Amino acid sequence: MPALDIASALKRALALATEAIGLTDPNPRVGCVLLAADGRELGAGHTQPAGQSHAEVMALRDASARGHDVRGAIAVVTLEPCSHHGRTPPCCDALIAAGITRVVVAVQDPNPQVAGQGIARLRAAGVAVELADAATADAARELNIGFFSRMQRGRPFVRLKSAVSLDGRTALPDGRSQWITGEAARADGHAWRRRAGAVLTGIGTVLADDPRLDVRLVPTARQPLRLVLDPQRRLPPGARILQPPGEARVIGPGRADLPALLAELGREGINELHVEAGPTLSGAFLDAGLVDELLVYQAPMLIGEGRPLAALQTLGGLDQARRWRLVEALPVGADLRLRLRPT
Amino acid sequence: MPALDIASALKRALALATEAIGLTDPNPRVGCVLLAADGRELGAGHTQPAGQSHAEVMALRDASARGHDVRGAIAVVTLEPCSHHGRTPPCCDALIAAGITRVVVAVQDPNPQVAGQGIARLRAAGVAVELADAATADAARELNIGFFSRMQRGRPFVRLKSAVSLDGRTALPDGRSQWITGEAARADGHAWRRRAGAVLTGIGTVLADDPRLDVRLVPTARQPLRLVLDPQRRLPPGARILQPPGEARVIGPGRADLPALLAELGREGINELHVEAGPTLSGAFLDAGLVDELLVYQAPMLIGEGRPLAALQTLGGLDQARRWRLVEALPVGADLRLRLRPT
Ligand SMILES: NC(=O)c1ccc[n+]([C@@H]2O[C@H](COP(=O)([O-])OP(=O)(O)OC[C@H]3O[C@@H](n4cnc5c(N)ncnc54)[C@H](OP(=O)(O)O)[C@@H]3O)[C@@H](O)[C@H]2O)c1
Ligand SMILES: NC(=O)c1ccc[n+]([C@@H]2O[C@H](COP(=O)([O-])OP(=O)(O)OC[C@H]3O[C@@H](n4cnc5c(N)ncnc54)[C@H](OP(=O)(O)O)[C@@H]3O)[C@@H](O)[C@H]2O)c1
Repeated sequence: MPALDIASALKRALALATEAIGLTDPNPRVGCVLLAADGRELGAGHTQPAGQSHAEVMALRDASARGHDVRGAIAVVTLEPCSHHGRTPPCCDALIAAGITRVVVAVQDPNPQVAGQGIARLRAAGVAVELADAATADAARELNIGFFSRMQRGRPFVRLKSAVSLDGRTALPDGRSQWITGEAARADGHAWRRRAGAVLTGIGTVLADDPRLDVRLVPTARQPLRLVLDPQRRLPPGARILQPPGEARVIGPGRADLPALLAELGREGINELHVEAGPTLSGAFLDAGLVDELLVYQAPMLIGEGRPLAALQTLGGLDQARRWRLVEALPVGADLRLRLRPT
Repeated sequence: MPALDIASALKRALALATEAIGLTDPNPRVGCVLLAADGRELGAGHTQPAGQSHAEVMALRDASARGHDVRGAIAVVTLEPCSHHGRTPPCCDALIAAGITRVVVAVQDPNPQVAGQGIARLRAAGVAVELADAATADAARELNIGFFSRMQRGRPFVRLKSAVSLDGRTALPDGRSQWITGEAARADGHAWRRRAGAVLTGIGTVLADDPRLDVRLVPTARQPLRLVLDPQRRLPPGARILQPPGEARVIGPGRADLPALLAELGREGINELHVEAGPTLSGAFLDAGLVDELLVYQAPMLIGEGRPLAALQTLGGLDQARRWRLVEALPVGADLRLRLRPT
């Protein structure tokens, strides 16, 4: 008989939630594991596409399909169960109705208006509710960092992707940039696109490279919305970014106000925004302080003269440079993937 | 009674050899551990400054100071014991005379003229000699990478150090570069200078920054020779690089031929050459294919307009860029230390 191991169940629930990446937007990715009091797994599941079942309901259904009685069982969930009627009935009610008596929650709902209400509702029904340790809460938050951003700041989490040489060049002086990084890095970049509700670029990149900016190199259930900032409506109608799979939207004529654009994308349910643009638009996002994460694939080569990562406002001194915090340095093929967040 | 553990003894001998960094140039850094047949350590030591005792003799002396009889003992050494009369008598003879009956060697002598002779001499005297596994041999070679380079190629191992921003800038447009990286990276940079027989820079850096280029931020027993390439004799007599501790040499008038300079430094016994120059001279070394290792401290900030890592010849296409292999990515303080070698 397996011992009751909540820590492992939380890990498994997080792994299930990870499988929901690219599936559930604008809803968060949630995993749920149901355990008997002796630690046996009774059922498990993760959130389905928006409008369909949440993780808790999937896990209950899985348990019943496996012929298990869940009365008196423990539910381990990566996000506080919902307490409101959205497109689906509240998960709290489903857990209570099924006879779950104990719930372990990795992290509270990020929406300040609803945080704690799910937990309160469960407790009012006599269910024992615990919160996981801080490290698990962090991992659960990271998994839905865009959802947290949208709920708490009303705008997507902005991840700016760039492929650079060791000396910081993104292209040759004439704009040629194919290929600085290798295949493994490009596939990895598609996995980050898949996480995003929308991929955004500038007309400069479209005119130079005619990129698709869809998700091809990793499997995906849906395509992110593709956005082109095109103030002067220079986009050729045959541009590949306008072609299926997936939808594309041109923003223009007129120069979009970036904070207003982010607020609008937040209202539309975009959790993570993946910016993959040239130095001009990358510089505009960076100078405006709107980048929440730099995702930099650094190729082990020196280019010399070439285009910069970002065209930034000139600094008066090195102390004026915005400082970032390196959160990850991971070899991907021959390249190095760096992730940085503002300090 | 400890079991005989050759692998641990090799690790310990490598650690001892590491302590000899900055002490033994132009001689290699070598460590030696003497073990009884039952695994007890009888003595240990590492190479002393040139002209003084080698590791094997230090270990024999240590064993005798500890009152141990080394007859029938095992010697574990990080480099093949020398068989020739240099400034000191051959270590092989010392081991044979002491009654050592088994020797484990991490790596053969790099000098093609002497490689294997120490092992042959030991075997001829009835000593059993084994070579360590490939990983240990690699570690032993790395520790003396400059000595290997000088013995095998007649020139130092050239390590080019640079402190850059994430976007590859080494200074603001007006040349200000203090400070891009943090204190921990600067101290780490001094540890790499300490490894070097000589530190080389260009007059451009001296005129811009008036650096000392000595070893201050880590303890050291000796200072590397400092070299300034100054074709037009522009160096001010009061430049800090000319001041103690350590010696400095100005190379000029006239533009030095870099391969010839390396050959000359090899003849002078420089094992590792630490190049810490501006983009002009760094570019000259790189374009000439004379850099064996890039040591890049990457600060987590974006500078925008600024000086490049290296002023390189313009590439006709990205496929013409020389490719490097990332051998290490290590956080040092808030910065990232990257080491790359040519592919
Ligand atoms: N290595 C990489 O990771 C990577 C990724 C993408 C692109 N690239 C390279 O980047 C180059 C293209 O760079 P780019 O700078 O010309 O293109 P870009 O940054 O993608 O697009 C710039 C254009 O976006 C428009 N724009 C709309 N709103 C803007 C705002 N708020 N601020 C600034 N611009 C705004 C402007 O168009 P109007 O001028 O019409 O007003 C501007 O010229 C290509 O060589 C491509 O290969 C490299
Ligand atoms: N971030 C870092 O890691 C770092 C490190 C060092 C320096 N820096 C910065 O680099 C800047 C200085 O750069 P720099 O490029 O002017 O200086 P540099 O590369 O240090 O020196 C260049 C000079 O070296 C001389 N030289 C001698 N032999 C040469 C050869 N074979 N090839 C090329 N040049 C040779 C030339 O002097 P003549 O012109 O007299 O002929 C040349 O102008 C400063 O702003 C400094 O702060 C940054």
